[in-house]
Amino acid sequence: MNIPTEISKHFEDSVLVAAIAQDFTTGEVLMLAWMNREALLSTLETGQVTYWSRSRNSLWRKGESSGSTQKLMGISYDCDGDALLLKVEQIGAACHTGERSCFHRSIPITA
Amino acid sequence: MNIPTEISKHFEDSVLVAAIAQDFTTGEVLMLAWMNREALLSTLETGQVTYWSRSRNSLWRKGESSGSTQKLMGISYDCDGDALLLKVEQIGAACHTGERSCFHRSIPITA
Repeated sequence: MNIPTEISKHFEDSVLVAAIAQDFTTGEVLMLAWMNREALLSTLETGQVTYWSRSRNSLWRKGESSGSTQKLMGISYDCDGDALLLKVEQIGAACHTGERSCFHRSIPITA
Repeated sequence: MNIPTEISKHFEDSVLVAAIAQDFTTGEVLMLAWMNREALLSTLETGQVTYWSRSRNSLWRKGESSGSTQKLMGISYDCDGDALLLKVEQIGAACHTGERSCFHRSIPITA
């Protein structure tokens, strides 16, 4: 499984890349998390999204304890190679609060 | 202009928050960039999206040189308060390459 060099150069510098999970049917942005090389490889090899948990300092297969897994339906990367956009089939809630999306709170805008 | 404490605590620790820009009509994810307190305040006060450029170490009003501005149509934040989701009206291309979205390259998936 080959990772594009634009992305892997960040891993060589021990930099994590940001991973945005987006519902592949509705387009709803569900969450933002992080990946290292192992997380990205595991995601590509299994088709089930795995992140790198910065708080636990370990691989984190999304839904491994909650059952709220993410099946990978597509993946793209940005012009800097330091951010990924995952199109996923989300089972249940993406957020640990039980909300579908982690972005469930708004800031009022007036401008 | 009040910034929710879940977000501002990161600024007090000199941590930038990630900002995802999403086309408010199509749902297309356009780019990922970063904000500090000043960038977020400027965005909220003017209604025009301003990021913090990590490479230039300065405020970066999106489109200030290219004309490809982003008008803020809505903003939400995630459960950790360290990521923002901006709904924007994108003028022209979000990406400096001229592509509409920075996420214009895909990784083949086979799993």
